[in-house]
Amino acid sequence: MPTFDRIQYPGFQDKIMTAEQAAALIPEHANVGMSGFTGSGAPKEVPLALAKRIEELHAQGKEFKIGLWTGASTAPEIDGALAKVNGINMRMPYQSDPIARQRINEGSMQYCDIHLSHVAQFVWFGFYGKLNVAVVEVTGVLPDGRLIPSTSVGNNKTWLEQADMIILEVNDRQSMGLAGMHDIYYGTDLPPRRKPIPMVKPSDRIGEPYLRCDPNKVIAVVPTHKSDRNSPFKPADAEFVQIAGHLIEFFEHEVKKGRLPANLLPLQSGVGNIANAVLAGLNKGPFENLTAYTEVLQDGMLEMLRTGKLASASATAFSLSPEAEKEFTENIDFYRDKVVLRPQEISNHPELIRRLGLIAMNAMIEADIYGNVNSTHVMGSSIMNGIGGSGDFARNAYLSIFMAKSSAKKGDISCIVPMVSHTDHTEHDVQILVTEQGLADLRGLSPKQRAKVVIENCAHPDYRPMLKDYYERALKTAPGKHTPMLLDEALSWHQRFNDTGSMKP
Amino acid sequence: MPTFDRIQYPGFQDKIMTAEQAAALIPEHANVGMSGFTGSGAPKEVPLALAKRIEELHAQGKEFKIGLWTGASTAPEIDGALAKVNGINMRMPYQSDPIARQRINEGSMQYCDIHLSHVAQFVWFGFYGKLNVAVVEVTGVLPDGRLIPSTSVGNNKTWLEQADMIILEVNDRQSMGLAGMHDIYYGTDLPPRRKPIPMVKPSDRIGEPYLRCDPNKVIAVVPTHKSDRNSPFKPADAEFVQIAGHLIEFFEHEVKKGRLPANLLPLQSGVGNIANAVLAGLNKGPFENLTAYTEVLQDGMLEMLRTGKLASASATAFSLSPEAEKEFTENIDFYRDKVVLRPQEISNHPELIRRLGLIAMNAMIEADIYGNVNSTHVMGSSIMNGIGGSGDFARNAYLSIFMAKSSAKKGDISCIVPMVSHTDHTEHDVQILVTEQGLADLRGLSPKQRAKVVIENCAHPDYRPMLKDYYERALKTAPGKHTPMLLDEALSWHQRFNDTGSMKP
Repeated sequence: MPTFDRIQYPGFQDKIMTAEQAAALIPEHANVGMSGFTGSGAPKEVPLALAKRIEELHAQGKEFKIGLWTGASTAPEIDGALAKVNGINMRMPYQSDPIARQRINEGSMQYCDIHLSHVAQFVWFGFYGKLNVAVVEVTGVLPDGRLIPSTSVGNNKTWLEQADMIILEVNDRQSMGLAGMHDIYYGTDLPPRRKPIPMVKPSDRIGEPYLRCDPNKVIAVVPTHKSDRNSPFKPADAEFVQIAGHLIEFFEHEVKKGRLPANLLPLQSGVGNIANAVLAGLNKGPFENLTAYTEVLQDGMLEMLRTGKLASASATAFSLSPEAEKEFTENIDFYRDKVVLRPQEISNHPELIRRLGLIAMNAMIEADIYGNVNSTHVMGSSIMNGIGGSGDFARNAYLSIFMAKSSAKKGDISCIVPMVSHTDHTEHDVQILVTEQGLADLRGLSPKQRAKVVIENCAHPDYRPMLKDYYERALKTAPGKHTPMLLDEALSWHQRFNDTGSMKP
Repeated sequence: MPTFDRIQYPGFQDKIMTAEQAAALIPEHANVGMSGFTGSGAPKEVPLALAKRIEELHAQGKEFKIGLWTGASTAPEIDGALAKVNGINMRMPYQSDPIARQRINEGSMQYCDIHLSHVAQFVWFGFYGKLNVAVVEVTGVLPDGRLIPSTSVGNNKTWLEQADMIILEVNDRQSMGLAGMHDIYYGTDLPPRRKPIPMVKPSDRIGEPYLRCDPNKVIAVVPTHKSDRNSPFKPADAEFVQIAGHLIEFFEHEVKKGRLPANLLPLQSGVGNIANAVLAGLNKGPFENLTAYTEVLQDGMLEMLRTGKLASASATAFSLSPEAEKEFTENIDFYRDKVVLRPQEISNHPELIRRLGLIAMNAMIEADIYGNVNSTHVMGSSIMNGIGGSGDFARNAYLSIFMAKSSAKKGDISCIVPMVSHTDHTEHDVQILVTEQGLADLRGLSPKQRAKVVIENCAHPDYRPMLKDYYERALKTAPGKHTPMLLDEALSWHQRFNDTGSMKP
């Protein structure tokens, strides 16, 4: 096995091994903390080898499952492969993989869906038990043993510190130009010893460019050569462009009213095509010298950095299309001083989100007429992905915005419903709802006032009369008129969809 | 009218007037920010005079309503009197008055129920429109015009700064010994100019002992002589004592496991008899040198300060029984350096709650088997009080605990239900549930695992078989097994209560 020129710490030379050899070192029932936030920076080989090992053990009738903790979603090589062989007992804190989702929804895999800012501290507190193994992808190892992080930071700092055993994947497909782009803050602590986090603007660097790592805990170093799982970029469809248009019009209005500065406030933008559409709109819009303090940098934000609309961007991970990844790598020197990648406990930290005053823009599955938002469940019972960082941002932001198309499944699902089938963001945390139909500004409104503006501005015209009818009957007959609801009808739209395939009667 | 020896600022002498004269200066449709947090420190005379004026105007067929903003709940002289004459258009951010509640639930008064930490900043941001008038009770006015705060701070700093017109009530029933107990932080700002809040322990003083006030905005100074509305202290009943017992056992267990320091972490304790019972339990318990960082200081915390169990306490208001208030006033020199009263944006600030690592203990109306909590609504439609600070604390605390008796209305209501009829704290924010039956530790559990422990440990035995039956049928038939629910049955317990007066079949 050749030594590998990115592994410059001498003490690691005799720990270089294959993914299979490394995977064999992971004990049964271990809690394993893996790198990865979206497809970026996830280990590429050890999880696949572990899945193979588990498959073989299961074929021999032996039990073998791990607890899998990550930054957020990962890639098919992790969630997909390990879920396929039924190798995961408990999954935390977020996933978006089709096979993992199926496992969870069929009941063969446990899933604990956690605010992403909470994960690191709860592991430090010991609330989730012992973390046994860390499997972390890095770009390289410095001569002194410190690690050049990869395309995401996520919870890697915590995994490296908390795990007893560390397996490193050193991926030479990640650009060495990433070195210097990261900012790993080592000032966190357990209460009662916590101090203020010394950041006052999104571009501040408050930590170190490299991850610390106790070399004595490293049990394996696996060279890899594989790209991140990158999702193709989809151009925005008409409804997404309309949503972006409503939002930009709203921002212009807020600037005019003096409620936002001319260059807005730091942008947080969820992952997905709706977010890319909003970013594309902002890129063509009237606002200059913007900043971003967000979880994930998608194509749209890189584009805005290129055009100069965006002065700087802070995140914990990239999530790029193959084309954007290529452009980014080729021009990495341009991006290095404009991008900061941080641990997710910092990118999503309530203290910083509140201080910086973010504009939080997140997608939702559905909202109800009173402004409660469901981000995680389909028809109440089935998980889609998870809450991710949306709660961290929505609760603490300057402005909390949720977006969706007003209908889904060719019109058979209304995304505005009498009552959400699962609540992730309560009426107290939702200020602005946007669909392609329009924007509802819920700030300072009572539930009844909200209902009117949500139905009028956001609901799809096919469902508007049904929502009005529900609301009016609820107002007439509910025992309380503060948040009038018909208990026996509030979830009937979801039931009807389950029964007939459509929320329409 | 005599000048008043607590009003030492010369410029106010010619502004001294009666409550009736002051109330006459409040314009129609004004947004009025009043002091008051629980019954403490609320203005005593001007709101009553305003209510009288409104009643007379209404009798003449004239419209007159105000927007009423406060710290939190107030007293019958404000909420009760103004609601009775139907004088409130929009009420924010919290109330607990029977007449106001009735108005809201009959639909004749709008109510916007807001996280208490959000209120000041949203007013600063301009999200709620212009604040026209501040009506603030103070203990006295210094020669330079600064104000000695009263028994609560609440949003008074913001009201005094944001309102165009200020009416002061100077209440000589409040002890001059309060001077020096307050800590008014003037370091807040609007983003993007915000800085870290320099507090690292609950007893830190980071501000000034007095409220600043632009004397040119003061249009009236009204001497008053009236006690705060104080609620009688109720000794804990058996169930409350059991809840306290479960909690203390849990804390001992956490200390043993190394997940809590021996003197715990700063305590936050909601208002009410359940909170007092827990504090009484802690006062007899094994923990020494405790601290509190909370919203409201009740009898229980004063008692703990006296016994020395509690080293210091930070809050935004007192809420004492008449006996405790008497004891407090007589021994105010003992309490002055042990108690800090702060603006509620600081007492409830996410940055500080997270940094200090609070143990958040709040009451709830109901929880569901998956760990969602309803703090605000009765049977979905009717408001009880409001979310208050519970969300500020639960989301950002080290430990997030919710407590209730397992049943109410002589057993006709189960406080553990298949699905909460309104969600204020989502599954992502609830770690520990406690009833007199026992304690459910939900940390790191999937929804299905939570359901088992909630039903087993917290539900009332009368309802346990029904809950098990619901859960098992949901698990069998729901399309998704992540959070199995029966859409057409999830809210049927509430409907049954509305129909028959009992959740029992």
